[in-house]
Amino acid sequence: MKKVGIIMGSASDLPVVKKAAAALTELEIPFEMHVCSAHRTPEQAAVFAEKAEENGFGVLIAAAGMAAHLAGALAARTTLPVIGIPLKSSNLDGIDALLSTVMMPSGIPVATVAIDGAVNAALLSAEILALSEPALKARLLERRRKEAENVLLKDRELQEEFGNNG
Amino acid sequence: MKKVGIIMGSASDLPVVKKAAAALTELEIPFEMHVCSAHRTPEQAAVFAEKAEENGFGVLIAAAGMAAHLAGALAARTTLPVIGIPLKSSNLDGIDALLSTVMMPSGIPVATVAIDGAVNAALLSAEILALSEPALKARLLERRRKEAENVLLKDRELQEEFGNNG
Amino acid sequence: MKKVGIIMGSASDLPVVKKAAAALTELEIPFEMHVCSAHRTPEQAAVFAEKAEENGFGVLIAAAGMAAHLAGALAARTTLPVIGIPLKSSNLDGIDALLSTVMMPSGIPVATVAIDGAVNAALLSAEILALSEPALKARLLERRRKEAENVLLKDRELQEEFGNNG
Amino acid sequence: MKKVGIIMGSASDLPVVKKAAAALTELEIPFEMHVCSAHRTPEQAAVFAEKAEENGFGVLIAAAGMAAHLAGALAARTTLPVIGIPLKSSNLDGIDALLSTVMMPSGIPVATVAIDGAVNAALLSAEILALSEPALKARLLERRRKEAENVLLKDRELQEEFGNNG
Amino acid sequence: MKKVGIIMGSASDLPVVKKAAAALTELEIPFEMHVCSAHRTPEQAAVFAEKAEENGFGVLIAAAGMAAHLAGALAARTTLPVIGIPLKSSNLDGIDALLSTVMMPSGIPVATVAIDGAVNAALLSAEILALSEPALKARLLERRRKEAENVLLKDRELQEEFGNNG
Amino acid sequence: MKKVGIIMGSASDLPVVKKAAAALTELEIPFEMHVCSAHRTPEQAAVFAEKAEENGFGVLIAAAGMAAHLAGALAARTTLPVIGIPLKSSNLDGIDALLSTVMMPSGIPVATVAIDGAVNAALLSAEILALSEPALKARLLERRRKEAENVLLKDRELQEEFGNNG
Amino acid sequence: MKKVGIIMGSASDLPVVKKAAAALTELEIPFEMHVCSAHRTPEQAAVFAEKAEENGFGVLIAAAGMAAHLAGALAARTTLPVIGIPLKSSNLDGIDALLSTVMMPSGIPVATVAIDGAVNAALLSAEILALSEPALKARLLERRRKEAENVLLKDRELQEEFGNNG
Amino acid sequence: MKKVGIIMGSASDLPVVKKAAAALTELEIPFEMHVCSAHRTPEQAAVFAEKAEENGFGVLIAAAGMAAHLAGALAARTTLPVIGIPLKSSNLDGIDALLSTVMMPSGIPVATVAIDGAVNAALLSAEILALSEPALKARLLERRRKEAENVLLKDRELQEEFGNNG
Repeated sequence: MKKVGIIMGSASDLPVVKKAAAALTELEIPFEMHVCSAHRTPEQAAVFAEKAEENGFGVLIAAAGMAAHLAGALAARTTLPVIGIPLKSSNLDGIDALLSTVMMPSGIPVATVAIDGAVNAALLSAEILALSEPALKARLLERRRKEAENVLLKDRELQEEFGNNG
Repeated sequence: MKKVGIIMGSASDLPVVKKAAAALTELEIPFEMHVCSAHRTPEQAAVFAEKAEENGFGVLIAAAGMAAHLAGALAARTTLPVIGIPLKSSNLDGIDALLSTVMMPSGIPVATVAIDGAVNAALLSAEILALSEPALKARLLERRRKEAENVLLKDRELQEEFGNNG
Repeated sequence: MKKVGIIMGSASDLPVVKKAAAALTELEIPFEMHVCSAHRTPEQAAVFAEKAEENGFGVLIAAAGMAAHLAGALAARTTLPVIGIPLKSSNLDGIDALLSTVMMPSGIPVATVAIDGAVNAALLSAEILALSEPALKARLLERRRKEAENVLLKDRELQEEFGNNG
Repeated sequence: MKKVGIIMGSASDLPVVKKAAAALTELEIPFEMHVCSAHRTPEQAAVFAEKAEENGFGVLIAAAGMAAHLAGALAARTTLPVIGIPLKSSNLDGIDALLSTVMMPSGIPVATVAIDGAVNAALLSAEILALSEPALKARLLERRRKEAENVLLKDRELQEEFGNNG
Repeated sequence: MKKVGIIMGSASDLPVVKKAAAALTELEIPFEMHVCSAHRTPEQAAVFAEKAEENGFGVLIAAAGMAAHLAGALAARTTLPVIGIPLKSSNLDGIDALLSTVMMPSGIPVATVAIDGAVNAALLSAEILALSEPALKARLLERRRKEAENVLLKDRELQEEFGNNG
Repeated sequence: MKKVGIIMGSASDLPVVKKAAAALTELEIPFEMHVCSAHRTPEQAAVFAEKAEENGFGVLIAAAGMAAHLAGALAARTTLPVIGIPLKSSNLDGIDALLSTVMMPSGIPVATVAIDGAVNAALLSAEILALSEPALKARLLERRRKEAENVLLKDRELQEEFGNNG
Repeated sequence: MKKVGIIMGSASDLPVVKKAAAALTELEIPFEMHVCSAHRTPEQAAVFAEKAEENGFGVLIAAAGMAAHLAGALAARTTLPVIGIPLKSSNLDGIDALLSTVMMPSGIPVATVAIDGAVNAALLSAEILALSEPALKARLLERRRKEAENVLLKDRELQEEFGNNG
Repeated sequence: MKKVGIIMGSASDLPVVKKAAAALTELEIPFEMHVCSAHRTPEQAAVFAEKAEENGFGVLIAAAGMAAHLAGALAARTTLPVIGIPLKSSNLDGIDALLSTVMMPSGIPVATVAIDGAVNAALLSAEILALSEPALKARLLERRRKEAENVLLKDRELQEEFGNNG
């Protein structure tokens, strides 16, 4: 299976980003996780994206905050699907990162997920890779089934705890 | 090659959405285009998503405005990658559709592109399908090359028109 | 009296949502409270809404955060009045949930209350049911009278604590 | 059947508000339409709300722009359900009216619909009145059926016009 | 001297609002402070405003959060200058209260100060009253002089603490 | 009677600002109207504010767009009440001017009215001056009475044009 | 004198950007104007920035809309001052470009001017270059003097046209 | 070398602003740091800006929150480059200060950095001064090199801590 590359703009993004790694691990998807900045190490970011395909990557996930250019900078250098995770930082609640990631001009798409949406970035990369990996598709379906079951379980607990007065 | 499904919430969305169709046509990607509403035809939307995989779709693109639930409603019923195009409507400049599309809760991802970003939605679906379609990958790269050439051409025209006074 | 159905998208929404339950209890309105997700259990949500009327519900209250589709998804499957409570989540202060809930396209209304406005959702459902329940109407009026009295009491306490220097 | 009261803050709001009147007419719901300002005729607004119930109204719809207090001002004087339509005005795209209408403090609910959402305000009032009016319920269901049919028709037209290249 | 009336929508607003009272006390301006809600005690609010002039008030200050209608509701019932303080509440950072207070339609002005700007509301009422109270004008000028002096003092302390490396 | 000074940051603001002049003329309030920029003619703005009181002004109205500093710059140099009109410009719908005008730090208040709220700025200045001008108070009350009458007239016209189907 | 480099992300940005060129021409500052995209021609953008200093540039101005990465991408590759002009595009009024340009993470600054603020970008580059160019400083001061004179002239015209009724 | 002037609107801004001082110290750039308010000490601010050039300053950095006029007020009185740092205050997350600082009208530019972007303000002033200071340019390049090295180091640590499962 192709690898997923998770790139974060700063090591301080790790607490959010590692949820993507955990979800990929759970789905048995190979991945690499890197710190690489569009602004402080632009050449490394460019090279990483340009060589990503020949290095065995199938999807890239880029996580960055503020004027979050990382996903777009990678997408400009590869035709692999690039998923952007806008990160909340200390000001503006992440709306700056969201707009910087999602409002890409025509020609270079970034598949943007929710602010701090690391798990969904992993799941989206899994859905992409599962198009040619039936076993992964099965694991994704199983994960969905469990999530639904968990909701139903919570609903039953709620009935027991509160009862219903009707 | 798997098909792309383009679903719009209302026939009035066609002027924006057909740019996605044009881009897919240019890239020789088979697709179907449908009107289907998460709110006015929820059952049809559910069935469409649930049968999308067996009906030969590889990626779904959903375009909707205002409280844009269409992409999320489809994503809830399939593990195919779902791309969301938030559409600008008469109020709020599309920020309502953007947030309604991108801020999906953990578990059900939507790959969101820019407001009215129909071309990028098509390109993103192409990047996904190209993972297992080398000929499509080549067409994508060629499209990128032409876009870059076009920028360089515009730059040369600018030099000729204005000269540079340095 | 018809029941009120309170549906929340996630069990973690309970701390806000149970204020609606408390207000309904106080007003002696029968209700059921459920966890049901538009995204993780879409079929259950659809069935719940479609059978709500025959199951004795008169009003549905849906509480969800982020790209809050729950109220709209229920409203798409019933002609019972559906009240939406947009919930604040960790980012964006609830504006995402507010716009996802209130900006419904023409045809499928959602009666939206304030962000985290669980008490008002309950009161609104009471006002609706009171149209054919004079005893409930009386309880609502009594609740209003007490709220007003409480304001007047606070005003008197303020005069005593601070005096007025005029 | 109880009447719906449609109140707009200014006669200039009529182009949007009369869509609510048209929808009520179509659903054969009796209504009155009034101009009444929370700011310029506050006493008339207060009296209208206080007497609304004895004057045969079942639901009030209030439409106003900018610092849109009308719905809240009416709701403060009646326990009838009050539906607020925030209107877009020349600045701020209606977000001022939306927040002024929906963010009601605990105790006095306003059922808010989308910016300029006059049709949905009418439909919501219909859903409320239909709780005790089976014939109206039937008309509402029929309206929904037609809306869905219209979507399906548009979808078929789209297939004919564009074909599908898959 | 005419009195300033400070009205807050809820007793929970006191921690912010009492800064206005402190500033008025410091400037020796007579005032009354009240809890009165545009929504829960609308009649009392109306009567307060209508009788404010004959009761010796020269300026009203209204503080409220969320869909903050209090200042506008008072202004609709008096031609005394009404100053609005939009209060921050638990969601939306006060932008809802700001827009609900400041975006008044033509005809009924509210003099709006910053979110939580209680001190400035007091100072503005002082500037208004000082137009016919030379002694108050002198106290206002003295307060300004002290504020400026305090800035200059802080600047000198900064020089001492850090020095300047130039 | 003291004069009102209307100051606009640019001559291009005149179409909005002259509505303030018209309202003052209607209320028989003496005024001067000036173009004076906080940024392009800062010294003139400072001198104007500092001499405003001795030059017979009782209230200043400042209208500016974008990073609208004019009202604050005048307020920093006078203890006369300063009313700020935030102007909409070609971008951002006036929210930049609103925040730049209203969010004044503690110590220097600006009485802010709605975006482009020139009429209300004039009315607010009239309310302030009317505190010591009974004849002006009477004209203000008469203006209010006419505005209310106009609303009632519009309501009657609406009844005649549409009738009411109840 | 060092040259100013004006780079725009798309030839369609020219109508706004050429106002910067006009201002530089007026101030007799040598410049080059280029089309170069951070996303479609990332390598050319990188090379341009890296060689800018040896090619005789002293300041770079970058103009881009939407997820405007151009200024940041150039700034990542040079230590010349980079000025960013966020451009308004068809959606979101330019707030996306503003946040994408100004919210740069620590380490790589971009000197951001107003949305569509092309003239100010040119003036800022002039202020920077004037630090070592006394003749340019004189031209800047003369431009300021003329701007101020123009405001004063407009003020006189206003007095003549309207008179002042005080 | 010319000095950098750092001016903050209030001594309470020091915790953010002193990061600019630290960065300038590290780069061996002479500077002065002052408290000076556009609103509370407007004359001192005017004089400071007017004399800045003859007092040996080459760049001014102005930090202020809320309706942040300080940078614009200084820029109106000097043709030195003025860098604005919008500060986050207790409400609105700093968006008020950002818009008040960056949206300057044509004629008077302010080079705006991110909300609380004190380090970047210092780096930008360094880039400006380095145009005529080769030694400073070298220190800037060295700082960039170290920042990049630090990113690469963090990346290696990440590989060691987590390994990569590919």
